[in-house]
Amino acid sequence: MSNKKQAFVKEITPMEEDFARWYTDVITKTEMVDYAPVKGFMVIRPYGYAIWEYIVQHLDRQLKETGHQNLYFPLLIPESLLNKEAEHIEGFAPEVAWVTHGGNKELSERLCIRPTSEAIICSMYAKWLKSYRDLPYLYNQWCNVVRWEKTTRPFLRTAEFLWQEGHTLHVGRGEAEAETRLILDIYRQLAEQLLAIPVVAGQKSEKEKFAGAECTYTIEALMHDGKALQAGTSHFLGQHFTEAFNICYSNIDGDLVNPYHTSWGVTTRLIGAVIMVHGDNRGLVLPPAIAPVQAVIIPIAAHKNPAVLTAARELEKALRPHLRVKLDDDSGFSPGYKFNKWEMKGVPLRLELGPRDLKKKSITVCRRDTLAKIELGIEESAAALPQLLTKIQNNMLNKALKRRESNTYTVSSLTELQEKLSDGNGLAKAMWCGCRDCEDLIKDRTGATIRCIPFDQENLGNGCHFCEKPARHMVYIAKAY
Amino acid sequence: MSNKKQAFVKEITPMEEDFARWYTDVITKTEMVDYAPVKGFMVIRPYGYAIWEYIVQHLDRQLKETGHQNLYFPLLIPESLLNKEAEHIEGFAPEVAWVTHGGNKELSERLCIRPTSEAIICSMYAKWLKSYRDLPYLYNQWCNVVRWEKTTRPFLRTAEFLWQEGHTLHVGRGEAEAETRLILDIYRQLAEQLLAIPVVAGQKSEKEKFAGAECTYTIEALMHDGKALQAGTSHFLGQHFTEAFNICYSNIDGDLVNPYHTSWGVTTRLIGAVIMVHGDNRGLVLPPAIAPVQAVIIPIAAHKNPAVLTAARELEKALRPHLRVKLDDDSGFSPGYKFNKWEMKGVPLRLELGPRDLKKKSITVCRRDTLAKIELGIEESAAALPQLLTKIQNNMLNKALKRRESNTYTVSSLTELQEKLSDGNGLAKAMWCGCRDCEDLIKDRTGATIRCIPFDQENLGNGCHFCEKPARHMVYIAKAY
Repeated sequence: MSNKKQAFVKEITPMEEDFARWYTDVITKTEMVDYAPVKGFMVIRPYGYAIWEYIVQHLDRQLKETGHQNLYFPLLIPESLLNKEAEHIEGFAPEVAWVTHGGNKELSERLCIRPTSEAIICSMYAKWLKSYRDLPYLYNQWCNVVRWEKTTRPFLRTAEFLWQEGHTLHVGRGEAEAETRLILDIYRQLAEQLLAIPVVAGQKSEKEKFAGAECTYTIEALMHDGKALQAGTSHFLGQHFTEAFNICYSNIDGDLVNPYHTSWGVTTRLIGAVIMVHGDNRGLVLPPAIAPVQAVIIPIAAHKNPAVLTAARELEKALRPHLRVKLDDDSGFSPGYKFNKWEMKGVPLRLELGPRDLKKKSITVCRRDTLAKIELGIEESAAALPQLLTKIQNNMLNKALKRRESNTYTVSSLTELQEKLSDGNGLAKAMWCGCRDCEDLIKDRTGATIRCIPFDQENLGNGCHFCEKPARHMVYIAKAY
Repeated sequence: MSNKKQAFVKEITPMEEDFARWYTDVITKTEMVDYAPVKGFMVIRPYGYAIWEYIVQHLDRQLKETGHQNLYFPLLIPESLLNKEAEHIEGFAPEVAWVTHGGNKELSERLCIRPTSEAIICSMYAKWLKSYRDLPYLYNQWCNVVRWEKTTRPFLRTAEFLWQEGHTLHVGRGEAEAETRLILDIYRQLAEQLLAIPVVAGQKSEKEKFAGAECTYTIEALMHDGKALQAGTSHFLGQHFTEAFNICYSNIDGDLVNPYHTSWGVTTRLIGAVIMVHGDNRGLVLPPAIAPVQAVIIPIAAHKNPAVLTAARELEKALRPHLRVKLDDDSGFSPGYKFNKWEMKGVPLRLELGPRDLKKKSITVCRRDTLAKIELGIEESAAALPQLLTKIQNNMLNKALKRRESNTYTVSSLTELQEKLSDGNGLAKAMWCGCRDCEDLIKDRTGATIRCIPFDQENLGNGCHFCEKPARHMVYIAKAY
């Protein structure tokens, strides 16, 4: 069996050697995802989908607690509706899939598969909204969307993905802006508390904002390879769409006015973030809050000692009310094989139980995040393990935060940015004049982009670090997924 | 305000006058659903979607408790894959939507939007399955599907609907058949316990079975207008698809064999069933288990007596941990208007609280299912109301069961079936030889169809009631949605 053990570790390309191959190895060998017959589409397998379910549960509860309700809009949008908001169609037209035939007949108008639902939702809001009494509209939908992307990678950028998209209407500009920020904060908490991913929250530049938005807020996370990933966005849409779609209500004076509008979303891309922030050369490392299996029990030398298996089963039963536990009692594989398998699958805790442990009425507990081993009395485990999971969850966030900090640096010129990026990726801080010219220059020369203008501004000088003009913002710059 | 009161009731067409219009009035005026810009598509509004969420929660828990896991397959299926199973393509080809262009380019192969996912799922199962050790596959997905139906009605038959589709693989035929029956039983419980809808469980005829199935099981419910509705189906697919898609595994002897296969689903159609089984001329009547609001508190003469509003708020707070309660304290509408509104929306309990009630420290409770009123001490309400909701839930199931029984009759000939159906719809019982000729004859002459061969067979005679041949089954016959 020692060959098999070896085989496992060999299966994953080390991340230092080729990060993209490491990622592909991890997601496919852990059976999180597979490639679909149509290029760019993915199949989310149970081990990956379970993580999405925990994300959905958490976020759905948060949204309901803040007064949002779910609903469902159709998959297909008539071309004429998509064309109503000029910037929107310009942004999305190149990447939509078109349905031209239904039930063997050619359609009189092409229908696009929603790349996002502003157009269809606005057409319905225009029909529903009557009075200021009806506002705010605080609606959200969980659904699939399709964007015909050229370069795809499972979870990170796929032709179809799952997401939630919130679409709200408000009487006041300030109220809508507050909603946009409230949601971004819910996303930040989701990233930090559930996924153990530290994020930078801020505003997108004019160039990078959503097609049709007045302003886009974002949370950005730093991956293991030093590239940034946009993990969630919240858009303040002003009255662009409500004017284009003629959404209006009678205000208290009886005048017809357009409400203010927001939209916001997070996607299955978050699963990719979890993998790339926490994973290591042994495979996945899953934060306990979203691990489908939080602890795996592996009986040792059970074939020679049936009492071990009995004790393992009792332990599983005792732990089940307290955590998501799995007993791997498959007699066809050795303990070593199982150690590697569950390590690769990122299970936070491995509980080893052999004849020696049994004698001592204890188990050997191995943490996936630190690989540290401790001995624990069987009797104490139901109380101690949930606490240990909390500790792991916190440790993973701290570890990721430290890694981000050590990969964050200030650059005072384009040359310095180029030098830093040639050494390896990371998050660069710099002052920026706010002009498109500098933004384009950075992109052209380095391939990196302005990720955001963070809410937490630092003063790194008075002048733009890329031209002669005065600085308007401190920004984060990075290569990105 | 008395005019407004009247207006409400007038808004809904009486069901005896025009059942289809009654249905449309109820679903649109209660804001459950709306018509989308594309013909045949629907928008599920929050009040309708919340019901779907309760159904999903209940069923998802049941499926997980019986060992099923969720995953997600892509929306689009290449034409060549759909064509692999002959009966399947014949059944679905006429009603699929085709994507021909992606990102401004014509595709080299047309892609269909999934009408159901057997084809895409089988292509992946063929890739994944290796050994008998991997079986059973007990997988389910929650998603949207599209079928280009000619005649549509919201919830009942729509071009796009939401559903779950389970797809399982098993070593043995018997095990797969048991799975098919297990799922049908879970569906039966869902209908009866959650939706308070009594159903007949049985097998579909050869003619009515799923395209590609060896055998289809169904639950059938009787609507208020005496028409039947297929509420859920579970298919035993044998090895049709596993052979066509070359899904195989090495058995314990090392031979390559095809596993047995099942698929099963329920859809947003169930919401339509709830409406048509329980509704009345005042609107919806919702079973407490799926009512988005289980009790609405309506303060009376609160503007003259501020203590009423205070007490109503306290009551809401006291009840919140025990049931889904809503206080309607909108001062812009009269109590009478609110009574009608919430009655139309089918809220199981209306709690009236006025100055007189307050003096007696009681509330007036009005049941939506019976319209009966009782007086209840405010102090007792937190304990008493959940019990009352259970009572309502049970009463609704019994009431629906009685209605079905009184609309079920035996017919001994085609003429008798024709006579019965000309008097009004209902569920006819008869003996059937099992031949397609009689089945077609029934359909041609009456428009009714054999709904199922129920598991609970009764012996109504030895000969077929429609020809000279011996009878093989007792069947239920009805006009259907």
